Order: sequence, then C-alpha cells, then structure tokens
Amino acid sequence: MVSEKPVDLSNCLIAHIRDRTGSGHGPLRGVKYVVKDLFDVAGVPTTAGNPDFARYRGIPSIDAWAVSTLDEAGAELIGKTNLHELAYGITGINPHFGTPKNPRDPARIPGGSSSGSAVAVGAGLVPFALGTDTGGSVRVPASFCGIWGFRPTHGYIPSDGVVPLAPSFDTVGIFARSGELLKIVAQLLLRPPVERPVKKLDRALVVRDALDYADLEGRVAVARVRDALRELGMPTEDVEVGVLDACYGSQRVVQAAEAWGTHQDWITRHRPRLGADVAQLFQRAAQLEAGEIGRASGARSALMRKVEAMLEDRSVLIMPVAPGVAPKLSLFDTPEASVKARERILRLTNLASLCGLPVVVIPTAKEDELPVGGALVGPAGADLQLIELAQKVADHLNQR
Amino acid sequence: MVSEKPVDLSNCLIAHIRDRTGSGHGPLRGVKYVVKDLFDVAGVPTTAGNPDFARYRGIPSIDAWAVSTLDEAGAELIGKTNLHELAYGITGINPHFGTPKNPRDPARIPGGSSSGSAVAVGAGLVPFALGTDTGGSVRVPASFCGIWGFRPTHGYIPSDGVVPLAPSFDTVGIFARSGELLKIVAQLLLRPPVERPVKKLDRALVVRDALDYADLEGRVAVARVRDALRELGMPTEDVEVGVLDACYGSQRVVQAAEAWGTHQDWITRHRPRLGADVAQLFQRAAQLEAGEIGRASGARSALMRKVEAMLEDRSVLIMPVAPGVAPKLSLFDTPEASVKARERILRLTNLASLCGLPVVVIPTAKEDELPVGGALVGPAGADLQLIELAQKVADHLNQR
Repeated sequence: MVSEKPVDLSNCLIAHIRDRTGSGHGPLRGVKYVVKDLFDVAGVPTTAGNPDFARYRGIPSIDAWAVSTLDEAGAELIGKTNLHELAYGITGINPHFGTPKNPRDPARIPGGSSSGSAVAVGAGLVPFALGTDTGGSVRVPASFCGIWGFRPTHGYIPSDGVVPLAPSFDTVGIFARSGELLKIVAQLLLRPPVERPVKKLDRALVVRDALDYADLEGRVAVARVRDALRELGMPTEDVEVGVLDACYGSQRVVQAAEAWGTHQDWITRHRPRLGADVAQLFQRAAQLEAGEIGRASGARSALMRKVEAMLEDRSVLIMPVAPGVAPKLSLFDTPEASVKARERILRLTNLASLCGLPVVVIPTAKEDELPVGGALVGPAGADLQLIELAQKVADHLNQR
Repeated sequence: MVSEKPVDLSNCLIAHIRDRTGSGHGPLRGVKYVVKDLFDVAGVPTTAGNPDFARYRGIPSIDAWAVSTLDEAGAELIGKTNLHELAYGITGINPHFGTPKNPRDPARIPGGSSSGSAVAVGAGLVPFALGTDTGGSVRVPASFCGIWGFRPTHGYIPSDGVVPLAPSFDTVGIFARSGELLKIVAQLLLRPPVERPVKKLDRALVVRDALDYADLEGRVAVARVRDALRELGMPTEDVEVGVLDACYGSQRVVQAAEAWGTHQDWITRHRPRLGADVAQLFQRAAQLEAGEIGRASGARSALMRKVEAMLEDRSVLIMPVAPGVAPKLSLFDTPEASVKARERILRLTNLASLCGLPVVVIPTAKEDELPVGGALVGPAGADLQLIELAQKVADHLNQR
C-alpha cells in the first residue's frame, strides 16, 4: 500500500534518537518505532511541539512508562515526532516546527495532533508509533494517513511521563502498519486498573446520525466496515445515538478548562510563543465561566450512562472517523474555515473520548483512493477484543 | 432502639401528603414513607428547602421516577421532608423552614442535607425514606440519627424528577430502620445502566488515614464493623488510601462549579432569598477560575482509577461516616466553626462520592450511646452485595 514515489519526511521528526536498542528480548526485538514528542525520553528535551516548552519542563531523567515498557520488549526507539502544538489541535499544522507531509498527498493535512507519528508509519519509516488521543489525536491522523490507529479505554495505558493536555480525556494511543502489529503492541501496553471478564461483542450498531456529518468517503468507509461485519456473521443494526452534539459541547468546555488548568502556570508566568490557533483556544478557555464548565461537567456523566446503556457491554458502534479524506492544507488559510473543519471532525470523535471508550481505526480505502478510516467504538474494557474484531474486518476487506 | 420519650417532629415535614395509597400490590404494600423535598410529587410544590424555589420550578405534573416506582410497589407516601437548603450543606440547619430536631438529642444537628428524611425514620414516623446524596447528604444524617443509610453507585438509581445539585455526584439514596427493609427498597429502585456480574466481596480494608480525621466515637464505629467482619470470617487489612485530601479538594471545586451551573439561571435572574452559608457557597463558586476547575476535573479521573485499582472489584473499605457523633447545634453559631466541621466531615465522605462508589451506613452505637455509623464503601456495581454484607455485620453486632 506504500506508494512508489519517494515520500517526503520533512517536518516529521523533531529529534532523532540514535544508538538506542531495546534492552529486552520480547516480541518487538529489533522493531523500530517513534513517539510523539509528548513522551519523555531520558536525556532528550520534550518539546510538546512548542519552541519554549522544553525549557519549562526540564530535561527528563527517566523514560515515559510506555517507552521503557517497549524498550523492555526489545523495540528500538529511533525518533521523537512532530505534533500539533501541545497536542491541542486536530490539523497537525505546526507554525514552529513545520507541518509533516501527508504521505499520500502532500497538499493535504496529515491530521493531528499526533501528526508526525502517523506520517512516520504512513510513509514507511517505522512499522508502529505512539501518539496520544484526547479528542481524536490518534484517530484522525490514522484515518488521513491510511494506517491503523487505536485509542484505548481511558486509563488503560499508563500515561506516566507523558505531557498531559486534559487528563480526564487523555489517552496513550498506537499507530501501526498492520492490525497484527497493533495487537502485539497493545497487549504489551494495556494495563487495566482492574482485570475484568468482558462480554463477547456480538452486535454492531451503525451510528446513523454520525453519517449526517460525513462526506461520501466517510459514508463509504462505514458501509465497508458494516458489510464486512455482516458477511462475517455479526448482526448489524442502524441506531440514532442522539448525543453527538451534546458530547461535542460537553467535551469542548470541560477539555478547554482542563487544558488551561494544565498549562496555565507556564503560559502566565513564562509567556511562551504560541501559534495563533492555540493561543486563541487558551484565551477562550481562560475566560470560561464556572457555571458553563459546571453544566458541561454535569452533562458528561449523564451522557456516559446513556452511551453505556446503549452498548450493553456487547455492542460496537460503526462510525466515520472524520467526515472524509484529509482536507487540503489550503483550506486552513482562514481561521473560519479551520474552525468549521475542526467542529465537524470533533462532532464525530467526541462521543468516544467523552465517554472514555476504546476505538480502533481500520484503514478502509482502496489503493487508488485517498486514505479514509472506519472507526469501531467498543464498550470500556473491550480493547483487545475490539482490535481482534477490527483485524477480521480488515482481512475480509483485503480478500475481496 | 427508639427512645421512650416523645420525639419532637417539628420542622421535619415541609408538606403532608394525604390520601395517597400506593397503587400497586408489591412488597411495600401499606408501608408508609416520606421523601426529601427535592423529589417531584405531582400537584405538590417542590421547595428544595428554599422559600422561592417552588415558584421557579412550577408545580410538577408528574411524580419523580423513584416515587412512582415505590407507588407501584404499594408504598404509601405521607410527606415531603425538610432539608438543608437546595441540598447544599451537611448540617441540616435551615434558616427558612427551621431545623429538624435530632431524634436522639435535640441539642445536636440532625445532619444534612437530607435532614428531615433521616429524622422521620430515626423518630419512628416512617420505616423508610428517600433522600439524595451528593457529598454525604444521606450518609451523614443516617449516622447522626442512628439509622441505616445507602448511597448507590452513581447512576444506578434514576434521578428523573429530582432537583439536581451537582449531577456528576448526585445520587438518590435510601434511609431505613432496618437492613432488611433497606434491601427491599434498594432492590426495587436499583436500575444499573448495564447488568454486569459482580465479583464476591472477600476482603475488608480499614482506611487508616480516615481514622486521623475521626474522634473516639468514629474510631469505635470502625472497630466494631471491622471486628464483626473478622468474626464473620472475612479477612481484614489496614490500608492508607492516601487520597482523602485530594478527593476532598477535587470534589469541592467540581461540585461547586456544577452546583453553580445548576442554579445560576434562577439565582441571577430571580434573586431568591438564600441562607448565608448557601449564598456564600454560590458566591465563591461563581468566582472559581477556569484553570482551577480544570485541574480539579483532571485530578478526578486519576483518583477514580487509583481507588478502583485498590478495590479490585472485590474489597470493601471500612471508614467512619463522619468524625463522630452529631455535633451540638451551638457549635454552628460562628461561620468559622461551621466551615471547620464541614471540612472534617467531607474529607471522610468525598472519596466515595468523587469516585461514584456505593456506601452503606450501619448504625453501630449501643442503646445508651449517641448514634454513630460505620461506612462500608464498595466497588461500583456491588450495591446489593454490599447491603447484604452490612446486614450480616449488623446482625452480628446485635447478637453480642
């Protein structure tokens, strides 16, 4: 699936890591990977995609938990990747370090915030990479770059040593070239707070109201996943979840308050350089009024219960990851267009992130099409079963 | 256990309900009960303990879900009870409707916010009652009035038709004269969003750091529960949870923002009369800064994961409900003393409410002692098993 012409990796890496071979003899021995530059690596600055952040954070003395765990499994870290500044954006456009090139069409955005990690896998530099997903930051670039993406159940992969954004939404996620490799890496990293038996996933629900936000390509992605599941013998139904706008609204406010809570000290005391979009997001977050945040927080728990009741621990939702293929970079010349594109995407991704649910992004486009992914959203804790189900879907699609 | 001298029920009821016999033939046929005046009853104003609120809310046309469910089970609603104004306080002192009298010592506070419901059961007016518990509002008055109290897993008893305070903490709770009746009512009202198998509770953990906030009486309550569980053959261990202050701090801020979010429109547009303590709480809530709320919200999810990992779906925590017996009313003459008493109590109750965990309050005092309860805190979803375990503890204590 990797294109024949040489791929442009400019702006993809923020730092090369050399001479670091994994210490272990585990299943990833000798497998190269990269991490989004939010993950601490001992002795290497963590930029978080901002030119002033590393000085504030200080040089880390120990590796992030996920990095040391992959190290023990033998994987070889070769670089830290560029990202949407502070992980606070969905386009991957970075005014300080440049914007990584979408490996399938350099005129289009790579998607963010984990842009560099997605590009590194999509371009064939490494077979897997780590990112983070707060509101779609693994899912969206996975879809736009034509690779596998995984957001775990909230709290299921430890985030020690990872720069936070909005902790009640933040997750450590995985990009991979194949479903098989995704599963191996996920098995190494998943650490549920409590081991629980999970029910068998035996029903797929197509989220009809999500299709209203999708272009033709997003709808085709959903149809392909649905047809594959049907042909694999899983019953599928259409549902209206009716909560997409409410999830978007609640996450928008609570996430903004948490993000401001995370970076307030640094921003107010050190006055760092910030890109125009990120500066504006923080400015608005700082002005949020207590009652508005309180209403968004109160709404969240009711939305979580509602989605939980709908999934019954046994259903998967089929949704478009984003409305369609990666938008053109030129679309983001005006702030209005940026805001609009961002809102359409987040209306699709925020259901899972608000509710802390696991999601697997399956690349569904054919070789001659621009990449687009279909999302399988599962009940909390069903992470591995969801990955296995997604693999079956992909195998079925590839056989046709 | 009910005292011989006549009990003073003044200020206990806000409204008598007459000629309302339960419509059903269920297990509660003919059993009388009362509800905190946050629950809608068709045709009766809902005051929420404030003289101006009912006008804003309008006369309800349908019963709260819990009321109609108990009606179908044959129970007979005879009154709506007084409360700490808007359920926003822990003492039960109400400057508008008067303060219900603690049935065991009228010089002491009844505890709140569900003061009238607890007094009605403690004084023998009814065998059970409904309250709500956001930060301790069932548990604390149950302990102070010497009765059973139950806070369910968050979201496990529907709160339709109940005036909210802080929705991500709010629960519908139950007071009862006996563990047996508590179980019957809980079985009728519990509606988990998803039915899940629960592990057997097989280990009790005494929260040592909670004892640092307790008086002698609170410690004795814990020791009695622990000894009974040991004698019943359950292994008990001491633990330091290390998160009591953090849970208190996170809930204090997020709850305040949500409470302000709930009542902001009414307060700013209608300028109702408010008690001095409640007015001050809202004033401070309205001034909370977005970053502070964001940090408290972000901390919450990490605390929830930590407590979840500690309980492993199989442990119960043994804690004092409150530091000790009900404080004297005279203690609350100065605002400083009120604030201090409130903080000590909430440091004990907020672990369970922040994490959405079920709690049963077991009356543990002997007949010649002032009432005090011991709390059993269980994993999310273990509600009925927790009630059964608490019943065994009480039976064991009563046999000695």
